[in-house]
Amino acid sequence: MGDDLVDLSEMFARFSEHWSPKLVARLNDYEVKLVKVEGDFVWHTHDDTDELFLVVAGQLTIQLRDRDVVLGPGQLFVVPRGVEHCPRADAEVKALLIEPTGVVNTGDAGGERTAIVVPI
Amino acid sequence: MGDDLVDLSEMFARFSEHWSPKLVARLNDYEVKLVKVEGDFVWHTHDDTDELFLVVAGQLTIQLRDRDVVLGPGQLFVVPRGVEHCPRADAEVKALLIEPTGVVNTGDAGGERTAIVVPI
Repeated sequence: MGDDLVDLSEMFARFSEHWSPKLVARLNDYEVKLVKVEGDFVWHTHDDTDELFLVVAGQLTIQLRDRDVVLGPGQLFVVPRGVEHCPRADAEVKALLIEPTGVVNTGDAGGERTAIVVPI
Repeated sequence: MGDDLVDLSEMFARFSEHWSPKLVARLNDYEVKLVKVEGDFVWHTHDDTDELFLVVAGQLTIQLRDRDVVLGPGQLFVVPRGVEHCPRADAEVKALLIEPTGVVNTGDAGGERTAIVVPI
């Protein structure tokens, strides 16, 4: 990760793991991360921050307790702080995430799905 | 602008002005904005913040004093705080911007190109 442009397609081609966000840029004290997901994640909440999802490929369902938000390519959604959510993808999804540095993917839930964010 | 998903294509279809960013979402104290640009902007600097550009359509040249960064669809670049820059587009570009709420598009330069950011 340097001070040059980030080509999303090129970056997505560099990894294959699911649910393991990769750091591709920093914006002040925020991180821009790419992630591939498939299957169900865990229900969790970020009490201190909103979380932006932008889908690049595939169809991502962000399950909320009262509704599902279904995102396709070129669609974004900001999960408000404090709102419990659980992402789900029936087939592989490529997405871009933006949130403050240090936010843990599993939020308050923790557990084995917690990922360390590394640059790529 | 509500708490629902944002479809970038649909939002871009709602306006035609150039160099006039439209607010489509908030992420904590940051704004997610869409902008259409064509031609040359003005050289300016944001002393207090980085600025993220993600090109959705077209080719955007972000002129820096020592080099040009040329972005196509699916490519992003973060202009670091304090770095003088001047966006240029030979043909229309659609881009997404993310920066803290209240950042002025013309930075330290001001002038007639300064735009009021409004929700769409």
